[in-house]
Amino acid sequence: MKIGIVMGSQSDWPVMEHAARVLRDFGVDFETRVVSAHRTPDLLFEYAETAEQRGLAAIIAGAGGAAHLPGMLAAKTHVPVLGVPVPSRYLRGEDSLLSIVQMPKGIPVATFAIGEAGAANAGLFAVAMLANADPALATQLKAFREKQKQTVLDMVLPEISAE
Amino acid sequence: MKIGIVMGSQSDWPVMEHAARVLRDFGVDFETRVVSAHRTPDLLFEYAETAEQRGLAAIIAGAGGAAHLPGMLAAKTHVPVLGVPVPSRYLRGEDSLLSIVQMPKGIPVATFAIGEAGAANAGLFAVAMLANADPALATQLKAFREKQKQTVLDMVLPEISAE
Amino acid sequence: MKIGIVMGSQSDWPVMEHAARVLRDFGVDFETRVVSAHRTPDLLFEYAETAEQRGLAAIIAGAGGAAHLPGMLAAKTHVPVLGVPVPSRYLRGEDSLLSIVQMPKGIPVATFAIGEAGAANAGLFAVAMLANADPALATQLKAFREKQKQTVLDMVLPEISAE
Amino acid sequence: MKIGIVMGSQSDWPVMEHAARVLRDFGVDFETRVVSAHRTPDLLFEYAETAEQRGLAAIIAGAGGAAHLPGMLAAKTHVPVLGVPVPSRYLRGEDSLLSIVQMPKGIPVATFAIGEAGAANAGLFAVAMLANADPALATQLKAFREKQKQTVLDMVLPEISAE
Amino acid sequence: MKIGIVMGSQSDWPVMEHAARVLRDFGVDFETRVVSAHRTPDLLFEYAETAEQRGLAAIIAGAGGAAHLPGMLAAKTHVPVLGVPVPSRYLRGEDSLLSIVQMPKGIPVATFAIGEAGAANAGLFAVAMLANADPALATQLKAFREKQKQTVLDMVLPEISAE
Amino acid sequence: MKIGIVMGSQSDWPVMEHAARVLRDFGVDFETRVVSAHRTPDLLFEYAETAEQRGLAAIIAGAGGAAHLPGMLAAKTHVPVLGVPVPSRYLRGEDSLLSIVQMPKGIPVATFAIGEAGAANAGLFAVAMLANADPALATQLKAFREKQKQTVLDMVLPEISAE
Amino acid sequence: MKIGIVMGSQSDWPVMEHAARVLRDFGVDFETRVVSAHRTPDLLFEYAETAEQRGLAAIIAGAGGAAHLPGMLAAKTHVPVLGVPVPSRYLRGEDSLLSIVQMPKGIPVATFAIGEAGAANAGLFAVAMLANADPALATQLKAFREKQKQTVLDMVLPEISAE
Amino acid sequence: MKIGIVMGSQSDWPVMEHAARVLRDFGVDFETRVVSAHRTPDLLFEYAETAEQRGLAAIIAGAGGAAHLPGMLAAKTHVPVLGVPVPSRYLRGEDSLLSIVQMPKGIPVATFAIGEAGAANAGLFAVAMLANADPALATQLKAFREKQKQTVLDMVLPEISAE
Repeated sequence: MKIGIVMGSQSDWPVMEHAARVLRDFGVDFETRVVSAHRTPDLLFEYAETAEQRGLAAIIAGAGGAAHLPGMLAAKTHVPVLGVPVPSRYLRGEDSLLSIVQMPKGIPVATFAIGEAGAANAGLFAVAMLANADPALATQLKAFREKQKQTVLDMVLPEISAE
Repeated sequence: MKIGIVMGSQSDWPVMEHAARVLRDFGVDFETRVVSAHRTPDLLFEYAETAEQRGLAAIIAGAGGAAHLPGMLAAKTHVPVLGVPVPSRYLRGEDSLLSIVQMPKGIPVATFAIGEAGAANAGLFAVAMLANADPALATQLKAFREKQKQTVLDMVLPEISAE
Repeated sequence: MKIGIVMGSQSDWPVMEHAARVLRDFGVDFETRVVSAHRTPDLLFEYAETAEQRGLAAIIAGAGGAAHLPGMLAAKTHVPVLGVPVPSRYLRGEDSLLSIVQMPKGIPVATFAIGEAGAANAGLFAVAMLANADPALATQLKAFREKQKQTVLDMVLPEISAE
Repeated sequence: MKIGIVMGSQSDWPVMEHAARVLRDFGVDFETRVVSAHRTPDLLFEYAETAEQRGLAAIIAGAGGAAHLPGMLAAKTHVPVLGVPVPSRYLRGEDSLLSIVQMPKGIPVATFAIGEAGAANAGLFAVAMLANADPALATQLKAFREKQKQTVLDMVLPEISAE
Repeated sequence: MKIGIVMGSQSDWPVMEHAARVLRDFGVDFETRVVSAHRTPDLLFEYAETAEQRGLAAIIAGAGGAAHLPGMLAAKTHVPVLGVPVPSRYLRGEDSLLSIVQMPKGIPVATFAIGEAGAANAGLFAVAMLANADPALATQLKAFREKQKQTVLDMVLPEISAE
Repeated sequence: MKIGIVMGSQSDWPVMEHAARVLRDFGVDFETRVVSAHRTPDLLFEYAETAEQRGLAAIIAGAGGAAHLPGMLAAKTHVPVLGVPVPSRYLRGEDSLLSIVQMPKGIPVATFAIGEAGAANAGLFAVAMLANADPALATQLKAFREKQKQTVLDMVLPEISAE
Repeated sequence: MKIGIVMGSQSDWPVMEHAARVLRDFGVDFETRVVSAHRTPDLLFEYAETAEQRGLAAIIAGAGGAAHLPGMLAAKTHVPVLGVPVPSRYLRGEDSLLSIVQMPKGIPVATFAIGEAGAANAGLFAVAMLANADPALATQLKAFREKQKQTVLDMVLPEISAE
Repeated sequence: MKIGIVMGSQSDWPVMEHAARVLRDFGVDFETRVVSAHRTPDLLFEYAETAEQRGLAAIIAGAGGAAHLPGMLAAKTHVPVLGVPVPSRYLRGEDSLLSIVQMPKGIPVATFAIGEAGAANAGLFAVAMLANADPALATQLKAFREKQKQTVLDMVLPEISAE
């Protein structure tokens, strides 16, 4: 199975590549695509409508401002949609977050943190979903967690700096 | 020409009927319809795609929470879309407002105040748009403004109440 | 496979039962449990640590205020955690939402809308996850979507009420 | 017909020129003017009062902070007013947005996104209004939309950058 | 000298009468009037333009939502304007507060708290302004403060209630 | 040693009695008093200045709106001050929270949650402070925690209610 | 009569000097002083207590974060206090604004915009207060307004820049 | 007795060292450690469980975003926990603040200001707690306060800068 990563604009890539990097590092198959809810609504519909048959296990969708991409994808497919609020210029992603997470009853979008952390976590969540049916991936995920833990354990705090 | 009034759910009617009432009072032709961005996305597309040929001069769209209806209509038609943020249960329409107004460059949604006032004003704005090419309607609008002014001038403040 | 539904207090049930109802309606096996991050941290750890071996495909966790339950479960298991911000008394769930969604890079929590809608959607998202590997459930989910669509299509707007 | 573009200060120009650019690109006649609600209130009144007779089809008004310009223009003319919240120094336009969009029932201001995107979209909305009665402009608008769509379709995502 | 108390609508009276009550209690001359920035802009201008010659020492102006009344009065007179943010239906006065307080450099509005407390305090502030040149009023104000202090000193806390 | 509980008004008691109840339940000596930063500033100073000599181990101070009481007490004594944001009428305690917690470097106020929970927790924190030097109180605190845990463990979730 | 300008720290000067500059330009007598509510509370009390006898017609007080200076001055003197919210490091003055403006009934603080504009406007408001009893100052204020108007009228908008 | 200073990541050190510096300056014994609620939950539990026996009088915990560290430590020990909201990338610590301060009834976290000031104040608060039982430390704290006061008294405001 494959994960789709879509975003409203090329300019969202510096945020969304964090999802791609996670999937690449776990060896999970994925595709990336620019799909704009507002400028290419037909492509959005087509992308969502063919998601199941193309074997997508989940779609990670990043968008900023009046971020309609994740919710509209979710409206058109039952393939799980993971939404990433991309920081917006003036409201720093508060608008993106609310536009993505506050979906009405009936059409869920799994929402993650604003920005890079959210994109990476959407990737990790997709891995965790797949790991439910893939023991090798589950093992990999545990190893990742272990390594991540070790990174923290290895952290050494510097001296107090001069005031 | 006609104005379309759409909303995501029957439950938005108590807010959105304020737009309908204005249009009725001005004798402007309009249609009302429940169109849900998330639950009936295909209807949304069809509604927007046929808006021009059906003679809609504007679409007034009300939605709450992750309010995608106005923006997605605007993505599918160049007919002007007027968005009304319907108050949401927990965030009182702050989410609706941001989801509607913060549209990306290229696809505008004209946004009005949260709730009843916004719905009525979307109706009035539609009237004003039509009045550009309809001197009779312009006259009517001026009379409405005059009457509205008079209502304020006629207001009498009560006595200071007992503490 | 089974879905776990946990919440910080009995008082969260009126919100969280919306997740349970969805799972029941889809015939998905689930368990419900009160687990408080702050008052029963050891139970939280034990619950998370045994989640995988007990066959949980996902944990739906609801919490309000400084809502640590979803994030701490996610910290202790790679089983996907779905977070539901329960409305808080004074800040109406804005605190719950931020405390759940703003997880740091490395430990994802899939977050849904504040309140009842979010709980129901967490349930639907869990169904969608399972449907990836369960064609019958996928069919059921499509039927649910179809019925939901029909409900909207059947909505009839009332007359404009007297002012 | 002509579009008026007004703003409270010369310093709003870098934002508001995005409206002017759109109108220029569409060949729509427009005028630009600094009109300050607070420092030149009489000019504001005069500008609004003569808007109709000077053939303005709409006024695009940008203002920041306690942004009274759009609302006061709307109070003095029934010519449609499009409001653009200019980002403010400390509150990044949140104050501007609320001061513009939260108009009381009776006097509408069509509000757009904070900043450059909102200014450009106000321009596009004015074009769409005019296009209702101008088939050539409608054709142009569709071409613009088409080109905008193509820009998105042509976007190519770069490689994942080195961490 | 006299204080003017104006508000955008009769419905603001329950808030604004708190200003009137303070002035009455201090024996300060005042007038009350409904003046709507948006529905009676000419009256607003006339009111402000004649404020000085009518002997107003200050104008207390209450308004809600996109609250333009205080700022536009201030734009038209150098008589000090005291602004009271009236609570709005959905945003509880946050919009009113920002619309009033965030005035641009050059045209000040002295802003007070949202609602009844703010109205009363605007009244007290007007009294304090007058007291600068009126020793009797200063004495009265000190007595008021003293009495207010005594009220607090006299407060008796009840027993802890049964849980 | 004794804990002082102060609040700006009698009307804060329903919130602040939650602090008193905790102290009573733990058998910790305490006094309660109405002290208003704004209406009885001299009492505030006197209260703070005598806090140490009167044997106060901590002062729990509740206030709402522009909540200056905790911070000004802290400015006048080095006795630890615990601040409780009392919910305000229109902003529900967001103003109280920021006014209490955002103290400048040099003068700390330990801040707790808005409302009843925060008051109770300020009480519990005071107990925990005293428990550092009082093994019996530490034992009591552990027992309280244990009982609290048991209450959660004993919670039974009801059936799913009929829709 | 004289105006006092106080601020919590030397670091507030770049904001508060805008008040001083206005007073200097109008030839109004003023004094400036660092008075910290939290670090020099006794000085604050002394400053407020002697304000009247030292002939202060108003005190302009700037503070940031949990900004207690204006409110505590107001608690200790009936001399009018004008509060200026100084931008804070992380919350950009939102905390300062609420801490200053949300004063309880009985003790008013006239609040101005966040930052430089607010400081200048506090200065202008003080001038306007004095102008009530000083015709020459009133004339000066009108001239200032006139000049300010002219500055706006003289503004010339540049060409649309290349994209 | 000793104070523990913990933080979720090495990157929090520039904020949290302000707590360490205060303790060092007062000669209070302390330890520093990276403990991540989400990446090293077991270490967090172990740290909290051994806090009492290791003689910690308080734990100062800094965390950003969905900041669970202080609350989870508090859930596992009755040793007083002082929480410092570390500024987050996009929401500047608003999320951190709410995640830390809005603890449910039963498990308190004493919360301080966002960022460096909050960290320093958590250190000062810890000193004040210890000073309750340590007259020498109380003397030191009074001297610190005195010196801090003097720093303010010594501040000299510069000239008004050229505009």
